[in-house]
Amino acid sequence: MKIEIFIENCRKKIDKALDSYLPKEKEYPSVIHKAMRYSVFSGGKRIRPALLLAACQAAGGDVKKAMPAACGIELIHTFSLIHDDLPSMDDDDYRRGKLTCHKKYGEAIALLAGDALLNLSFQLFAKSDPKIAVRIIETASKAVGTRGMIGGQVVDINSKEKDPGLPTLQYINTHKTGALIAASLKIGGIIGGASENKIQRLQKYGEYLGVAFQIIDDVMDSQGYAEIFGDKGAMREAARLTQKAKKEIKVFGKKAEVLEGISDHLLRRTI
Amino acid sequence: MKIEIFIENCRKKIDKALDSYLPKEKEYPSVIHKAMRYSVFSGGKRIRPALLLAACQAAGGDVKKAMPAACGIELIHTFSLIHDDLPSMDDDDYRRGKLTCHKKYGEAIALLAGDALLNLSFQLFAKSDPKIAVRIIETASKAVGTRGMIGGQVVDINSKEKDPGLPTLQYINTHKTGALIAASLKIGGIIGGASENKIQRLQKYGEYLGVAFQIIDDVMDSQGYAEIFGDKGAMREAARLTQKAKKEIKVFGKKAEVLEGISDHLLRRTI
Repeated sequence: MKIEIFIENCRKKIDKALDSYLPKEKEYPSVIHKAMRYSVFSGGKRIRPALLLAACQAAGGDVKKAMPAACGIELIHTFSLIHDDLPSMDDDDYRRGKLTCHKKYGEAIALLAGDALLNLSFQLFAKSDPKIAVRIIETASKAVGTRGMIGGQVVDINSKEKDPGLPTLQYINTHKTGALIAASLKIGGIIGGASENKIQRLQKYGEYLGVAFQIIDDVMDSQGYAEIFGDKGAMREAARLTQKAKKEIKVFGKKAEVLEGISDHLLRRTI
Repeated sequence: MKIEIFIENCRKKIDKALDSYLPKEKEYPSVIHKAMRYSVFSGGKRIRPALLLAACQAAGGDVKKAMPAACGIELIHTFSLIHDDLPSMDDDDYRRGKLTCHKKYGEAIALLAGDALLNLSFQLFAKSDPKIAVRIIETASKAVGTRGMIGGQVVDINSKEKDPGLPTLQYINTHKTGALIAASLKIGGIIGGASENKIQRLQKYGEYLGVAFQIIDDVMDSQGYAEIFGDKGAMREAARLTQKAKKEIKVFGKKAEVLEGISDHLLRRTI
């Protein structure tokens, strides 16, 4: 199966599941549910949940069981985008060619929509078998918190005015983008019933991939890594990290094919 | 034991536990940990965790086991205050006589500190025995979400300009304040190993108490209920709800004493 078809199939399944988990627009108080749905269904490619499902599959697990957690990860991603776009943060009016949540619904509702999505994600994580659920929640909340994504956002904000330098840039990349991607892979492995060693491999794969992902983003936006190393140097680094990522999951043999395909696919995004 | 002593003892224990669960100020990136601690340790009375511990005790449970969840509830409460105070929400410069989080650390850090506290609360909930943890997380996230506290905040914002009227005011009270208080009681019962019937009684007690609590707040601030019914009428309603609350927990017999004492204590706040 071509990897683009796997990703597209995942996207459809994830979108359907997200629709079933999110409160309906009509439900009172309607405006918050509209705002949540507006941002969740604004054209995301669902890469993180696709990686989670692929990791679960690589571990020999049932992807249906991984669906609530995959959706939870996407809600966390959406929460982070909504709050990142707010005037006190990046102050962005548009995302993916559409008005940002606060431009469409006002700042207060956007703030609360983000809060509600983060909160709802834990409700979805709690749907797994209790022992699994607790591990998912530990993994996700560690990835989101000040030792993960939020830590990365803090350092990103504090270095907006000045040139961050490579170590700071690396901290931002591994935390702001890398932590949630690595957590997606780890959670997929946990749900799939992988051994501790294999779970660690999946996480490592996710860590390398997450940084490669951010570097490619930087190249497309001509900032960060691309500013320091130039487009070619940055792409070489992204390719190197993708190779390192793929090496980590060799232990899955033929079952690693989809994950390998996704990482190659992400590397091709700029072409 | 006098109820004030129970509450004060709880406060000390909770503060100590919160200190152990929160990242140290020095930990990188320091500013976010400072902001989180600034708001968590800004003079809160820890009523919600005290109610949770009292409910656990009434159910015959070990309060030590309830400590992480009690702290989680307090972190959620703090998160809601930080976001409520933001310029796009209530735009408050002071809380409990101290600068609000965004006045002290800037809007971006305050936003992220709130996010981090909500996120950390789930990490604490996950510390319980898995089956218990999953029930705690379901209960807490329902109480926080758009069918609970956040729903109440949305309706509160939307009715800021106009006179809300009694049904809307009741929706705001039961959701914005009542839901988290009721959840605290329910969670205490779950951890304490109470029967389903007793857990429901505790939740009901919490629902009545939560509304009484908000009405008393309204009297102190001369708004909401106090505007509609006058101070005396509002206090009569708070007293009536406190009686109804206490009736719910009669089933606990002598073990209900502390909970009864807390509800009477809250009613006396205005005197």
